[in-house]
Amino acid sequence: MNDKFVYSFGGDYTEGDASMKNLLGGKGANLAEMIKIGVPVPPGFTITTATCVGFYENQSKYPDGLEDQVRAALSKTETSMNKGFGSDSQPLLFSVRSGARVSMPGMMDTVLNLGLNDETVKGLIAGSGCARFAYDSYRRFIQMYGNVVLGIEGGKLEVLLEKAKEKKGVELDTELEADDLKQLVIDLKIRVKELTGNDFPDDPYDQLWGAISAVFDSWNTKRAETYRRLNSIPDHWGTAVNVQAMVFGNMGDECATGVAFTRDPSTGDNLFYGEFLINAQGEDVVAGIRTPQPINEVGRQDSELASLETVMPDLYKELVEVYKKLEKHYCDMQDLEFTIESHKLWLLQTRSGKRTVKAAIKIALDMVAEGLIDKQEAIIRVEADKLDNLLHPTLDPDADKNLLAKGLPASPGAACGEIVFNADEAETLSADGHKVILVRAETSPEDINGMNAAQGILTSRGGMTSHAAVVARGMGKCCVAGCGAIVVDYNKNTFKVGELLFNKGDIITLDGSTGEVFSGKIATITPQLDSDFRTFMSWADEFRKLKVRTNADTPHDAEVARDFGAEGIGLCRTEHMFFEEERIKAVREMILADNLAGREVALAKLLPEQKSDFIGIFKAMDGLPVTIRLLDPPLHEFLPQNDKDIEELAEIIGVPLAALKERIDALHEFNPMLGHRGCRLGITYPEIYAMQVRAIIEAACEVAKAGGTVIPEIMIPLVADVNELKFLKDRSKTICDKIISASGIELDYMIGTMIELPRAALTADVIAQEAEFFSFGTNDLTQTTYGLSRDDAGKFLSEYTDKKIFANDPFVSIDIDGVGALIEIGVTRGRTTRPNLKVGICGEHGGEPKSIAFCHRTALDYVSCSPFRVPIARLAAAQAALADN
Amino acid sequence: MNDKFVYSFGGDYTEGDASMKNLLGGKGANLAEMIKIGVPVPPGFTITTATCVGFYENQSKYPDGLEDQVRAALSKTETSMNKGFGSDSQPLLFSVRSGARVSMPGMMDTVLNLGLNDETVKGLIAGSGCARFAYDSYRRFIQMYGNVVLGIEGGKLEVLLEKAKEKKGVELDTELEADDLKQLVIDLKIRVKELTGNDFPDDPYDQLWGAISAVFDSWNTKRAETYRRLNSIPDHWGTAVNVQAMVFGNMGDECATGVAFTRDPSTGDNLFYGEFLINAQGEDVVAGIRTPQPINEVGRQDSELASLETVMPDLYKELVEVYKKLEKHYCDMQDLEFTIESHKLWLLQTRSGKRTVKAAIKIALDMVAEGLIDKQEAIIRVEADKLDNLLHPTLDPDADKNLLAKGLPASPGAACGEIVFNADEAETLSADGHKVILVRAETSPEDINGMNAAQGILTSRGGMTSHAAVVARGMGKCCVAGCGAIVVDYNKNTFKVGELLFNKGDIITLDGSTGEVFSGKIATITPQLDSDFRTFMSWADEFRKLKVRTNADTPHDAEVARDFGAEGIGLCRTEHMFFEEERIKAVREMILADNLAGREVALAKLLPEQKSDFIGIFKAMDGLPVTIRLLDPPLHEFLPQNDKDIEELAEIIGVPLAALKERIDALHEFNPMLGHRGCRLGITYPEIYAMQVRAIIEAACEVAKAGGTVIPEIMIPLVADVNELKFLKDRSKTICDKIISASGIELDYMIGTMIELPRAALTADVIAQEAEFFSFGTNDLTQTTYGLSRDDAGKFLSEYTDKKIFANDPFVSIDIDGVGALIEIGVTRGRTTRPNLKVGICGEHGGEPKSIAFCHRTALDYVSCSPFRVPIARLAAAQAALADN
Repeated sequence: MNDKFVYSFGGDYTEGDASMKNLLGGKGANLAEMIKIGVPVPPGFTITTATCVGFYENQSKYPDGLEDQVRAALSKTETSMNKGFGSDSQPLLFSVRSGARVSMPGMMDTVLNLGLNDETVKGLIAGSGCARFAYDSYRRFIQMYGNVVLGIEGGKLEVLLEKAKEKKGVELDTELEADDLKQLVIDLKIRVKELTGNDFPDDPYDQLWGAISAVFDSWNTKRAETYRRLNSIPDHWGTAVNVQAMVFGNMGDECATGVAFTRDPSTGDNLFYGEFLINAQGEDVVAGIRTPQPINEVGRQDSELASLETVMPDLYKELVEVYKKLEKHYCDMQDLEFTIESHKLWLLQTRSGKRTVKAAIKIALDMVAEGLIDKQEAIIRVEADKLDNLLHPTLDPDADKNLLAKGLPASPGAACGEIVFNADEAETLSADGHKVILVRAETSPEDINGMNAAQGILTSRGGMTSHAAVVARGMGKCCVAGCGAIVVDYNKNTFKVGELLFNKGDIITLDGSTGEVFSGKIATITPQLDSDFRTFMSWADEFRKLKVRTNADTPHDAEVARDFGAEGIGLCRTEHMFFEEERIKAVREMILADNLAGREVALAKLLPEQKSDFIGIFKAMDGLPVTIRLLDPPLHEFLPQNDKDIEELAEIIGVPLAALKERIDALHEFNPMLGHRGCRLGITYPEIYAMQVRAIIEAACEVAKAGGTVIPEIMIPLVADVNELKFLKDRSKTICDKIISASGIELDYMIGTMIELPRAALTADVIAQEAEFFSFGTNDLTQTTYGLSRDDAGKFLSEYTDKKIFANDPFVSIDIDGVGALIEIGVTRGRTTRPNLKVGICGEHGGEPKSIAFCHRTALDYVSCSPFRVPIARLAAAQAALADN
Repeated sequence: MNDKFVYSFGGDYTEGDASMKNLLGGKGANLAEMIKIGVPVPPGFTITTATCVGFYENQSKYPDGLEDQVRAALSKTETSMNKGFGSDSQPLLFSVRSGARVSMPGMMDTVLNLGLNDETVKGLIAGSGCARFAYDSYRRFIQMYGNVVLGIEGGKLEVLLEKAKEKKGVELDTELEADDLKQLVIDLKIRVKELTGNDFPDDPYDQLWGAISAVFDSWNTKRAETYRRLNSIPDHWGTAVNVQAMVFGNMGDECATGVAFTRDPSTGDNLFYGEFLINAQGEDVVAGIRTPQPINEVGRQDSELASLETVMPDLYKELVEVYKKLEKHYCDMQDLEFTIESHKLWLLQTRSGKRTVKAAIKIALDMVAEGLIDKQEAIIRVEADKLDNLLHPTLDPDADKNLLAKGLPASPGAACGEIVFNADEAETLSADGHKVILVRAETSPEDINGMNAAQGILTSRGGMTSHAAVVARGMGKCCVAGCGAIVVDYNKNTFKVGELLFNKGDIITLDGSTGEVFSGKIATITPQLDSDFRTFMSWADEFRKLKVRTNADTPHDAEVARDFGAEGIGLCRTEHMFFEEERIKAVREMILADNLAGREVALAKLLPEQKSDFIGIFKAMDGLPVTIRLLDPPLHEFLPQNDKDIEELAEIIGVPLAALKERIDALHEFNPMLGHRGCRLGITYPEIYAMQVRAIIEAACEVAKAGGTVIPEIMIPLVADVNELKFLKDRSKTICDKIISASGIELDYMIGTMIELPRAALTADVIAQEAEFFSFGTNDLTQTTYGLSRDDAGKFLSEYTDKKIFANDPFVSIDIDGVGALIEIGVTRGRTTRPNLKVGICGEHGGEPKSIAFCHRTALDYVSCSPFRVPIARLAAAQAALADN
């Protein structure tokens, strides 16, 4: 058998490189690559993924030749390290890790210190000069091996450690001395025998083969299988095994260990940045027991501690050379782990460093200037979703926090203020200069003014697309929704979290980016959009194909969005305009009128109001298209629902209470989402849409006459059948054309439709005969495609994601298999009829990167999202376009 | 130009025949065909549909040669009738009618007596010997022509007739004399001139060309266009024009007119059956002013009046020959109109005669025996939907009726009884021997026992697929739903219709086939399924490919359906079983338990009950498959909703009222249809499905052990994602296999899913990896595809069908373009994964003929419908199969 199963690396030799990820796994290929470019990495070898696959195909037997190849590679490693595997003087120890093509939870992680036994431990004592260290390593090895390789439940061995401490009367592991640990090793081995029936393997080779088998076996655990299924990773990929020499930073004062970033991960400044400890293990640096020392003078600042640059100048110099080499090689900011064993520098790991979004942008811009990467690469480097952090206030990371409860991160940003339970009160208090947080079980359209006045919104019910969440995102206002731990009592003006009681006026703080709710005031940091941001976004705009519009219902929102780069309004909801005090009266009068004449009187009062709304929006969006959706929600949403409010209304409008109740009762719906709303209202009450269309076109004519450029697009919601659209379009066109011709100016306008019902997507070819544009309303389309109410799904959707039944919340990221299939059908069929049909998306998904990538692939013309997500959408659209290549 | 535009017919010549429908239109081809087989039809000619199309293509100009061909054909007609067009002695008059390939509303109907003017009317007086008749014909012609050809609104001419009567001080048209009518003709012509600016055309040729143009123009009216669009009739078909000589049955005692059926339309008996009047017009026979005479002695029975057979034996003999010829030619029972003008018999029309379903079956069977038609044709002849009338009681057609109001014909049949407003009372009264009608605003699952006990159900709210309608159809019980005119007051135990008040105990009668509600008792007729019916149905079974199953939840329903020919149960809903007194207690206990242990205690009480249900059903369906759907509705449906009932429940179960209310409140959903139901319950409360699966399989094992053949199919509802199904199927299989293996018998079972959400259809290929069968739940699929709640749609759906926005109610007949497209996708994708996948449909549509035809075309394996629709489905399935050829 001539197959090559094992690839060695170390010193100045390597058989693999970064291109061999499929065969060596991600980790193995990367280790080989580092050696290749001359970075000092502890030597070792990788057993290929193909060996793993063969192992399974061959009834879990190792292929002929594997053992020989492993022995040869091992001996090469011994030579490289000048140590011996199983030696009692210079023992070579190994780490063993799995390494698939992509990192996979559920796979075996790591066994460290493999090779220790009662003989080799002596060599470790000699080398380190510290028996405690050696026995601690030994007992850790037994526990780790027992757990990971022998399958013993972790707690069953851990308990012996606890007993040892109990016996000695101490509390910390570090208080156990060498002899205690030596005894613990003995006890652990006895327990392993009791639990497994076998002696703990003393022979290092047995240990090694046991670990290799454990890696292979971990490929087929339930957890790994589930992960592969959910992430479409084929079973036949297999995993590689990485066996690598251990090095120790804690074998004396010539040893050290540290972590470093090649640039500042917080600001992105091009400064080498890191920390280290003399005579320490890697975990000590981050554990916070000893204060780590700065790696160099530039990073020392006020620190009293000596830097590596000063303490070990030659090694520091070597490290600088290595980091420059690595950054140049990987063309990205690196996060390094290094160990110095007996004055020799080893790199244990290099990987792209995590960074704040601010740093990500700075580094990307700098690296383009340095010629390390091109603009395209710069665009790809910044996570679109993270831009959010730049646009909203954030909590001061250094402040003390008192976490109360956690809800859904419904709308990002941070806010603190006094608790209020009532929208009107929020408005009043805010007008008086108070900062308030509006706390509700759920919000309704009547609460909008209060939401607008509040710093943030907290609800105990509803999901990521509940009313509160959607409206808050539109406003760019912090919101934590569906925080079930909070029990609101409107009567007492209190809420409870467990036994804790909060009253009106108490201060709380929300983090809408994490869903966290804190008691008390926490300082927030206000964001600044700097020139780096603007430069970076302008690069994104060079590459994207998708246009980005915004969902905005007010001139203010439109202006904010335009400043964020919105290229028009994709969804202007007209119903939010109906809730102002004077208007809601007229709206209710219209709803409660029992004949056409009565409705028309009420609508006549609304006409000038609507018109002035549109004038403001058209002005704010001068020169850009504005898509206005005609009235969508069912009429009962505009009527009060509780007895007190109904009584009040009856008095105001002078209608007998019984009659009012009867009318409200008649408007009640079992499933309002599937009820008398959208174009269905337009068909049964054509006068409502007639008023809205008139307001839009009169406003457009007025702004155009004053020299503005207006591009109005009238959108009919909830169309299921082309005849609905035709009926409403014909009537609307008549009104529009009459107004335009009377105005004496030229004005182009379009009439199109939402595609938000499966039937509309399925019959898009016919609908496109009438529709001049399509806009996918993916919120409702998701609800109907799944048969799932977003208002009700919150109660069980988390269980669905927990049980891995849904990979994602389909209200957050477009469900590509179902909803996406309908969108594809809709686009394809629509363009069969009308090849240049303009198609966009205006659901919540329009601001979510994965969904935006889907929209790009599906050849949509634009996405539309809430103002604060416009930059995210611009970047995500550019990334999607770059992914085509 | 050599094109032939005009086809003549009459006497012994004809240029067309029945095969030329595309060119001559339906009516023209049929007139030609009758002449061809030697039936005496008034002569005339047909202008082709191609002429109409050319007319439009050529800017509404007649083609060269048309005028000459019309003149030639006209002259041929004159010769044949021995009369002259425009003659003042023997004037030939014409009828002019449109005639497209298919009959089309919106097209010009008829102009009669064309050719009359001040000269030709003299000839008509001479011929008939009656000036009044002649002038009445004349003024009718002017009105008809003015309206239909000149486009004058009908009322504007009619008013002159009213004035004439007013002037003379009479009330009836017949009271006007010849001179009055003569003056009316003058007045009408003056008015025509005033209204149109032109003289009424006196020249018969001008009249003729005007009428021809009017027919052509009527092809492009708005109404005709809409009709074509809705019925997919291409615009380029065009219409033909039929010009036919008028004959008169009212020109003296040698004249007569009559109508006849070639067989008895009520019983189907092979007897010539008809009525006639001497010296009368066709409309007099049906108008009821004079009592018509029987056409023959066999039909004379007790009549004092002489039959045609006696009065004009030679003409009767000729008529008999004609009818036999026609019936033999058309191979169907014919409905004839004839006129005898001056002792000459003319057939004016023959068409397939309308008949009762009983007659339809009898005639079909007889005609097969007579060799006139084959079995296939017999099957096609009977309208499947009409079978309903054979299966349910009907109202005595001769009884006096007092119509109160009209609702939806929700479940066919007739019933009368005392009004009750409460389900429990219905049960009690019924147990005491009362016949009751349950009257409710709407029904809920708690009302089932009362519905079952009642003779019929009347609701004031809800549509054709409301709870009341669906359950009543399942029970085969008469139901009128959504009868909005009825205002129920539960507090007073009354309902009002307008000002009429009805109390508990008052008697009303319902006709569920028409939706009519009557006051008082009306006799009903109980149906009998005779051997004709059984023979006929057995023929249908020979041809159909689709299996027919039933939706049945009880052994009784299963037995009824099996007697009607059901081949298994396609949908057994388990939730209806939960409402019996003892069970609902346990169900509520389960719902209100706040932990798993509590729920399991309650479920343990339900297990034996469910098991005994299934044992009964399996026994009733011995040897046939039984598909059982696991719990589907949201839990709140099992809890009381009004305060009184909640208080009662709190007391019974010993839970504090506030706690109970809180729990009910927590279960409240905004859109229950899209909420926590179906498999979503199974996933959050696996113990519920576990109990049901256990009950099913334990029952199956028990029945199988006792020698029965059980084919259980477990159906998981509301699956949107394959992972839901996999989760539940894995758990269910474990339970099933354990029970079966413990029982020691062999039992095959399947686990499949409803496809009732768009996403399930779209991802059917993946779902079929787990599903062993599919059953399309078209009720929910229609709701989600349209985004339309069937419970709420009633409020505006009628407006949609009125405005022709929806051609059909999609809850009644499958929406082929939308829902149908998803079904096709589902079937195709499902069978890609699993080629032999069994696919059925179990929504309400499973019993509707057009939907059944769709299911056949889409290669479903079976349809499932309520027991009383099983025969309809069998017949419709056979007709669909025959339509393949």
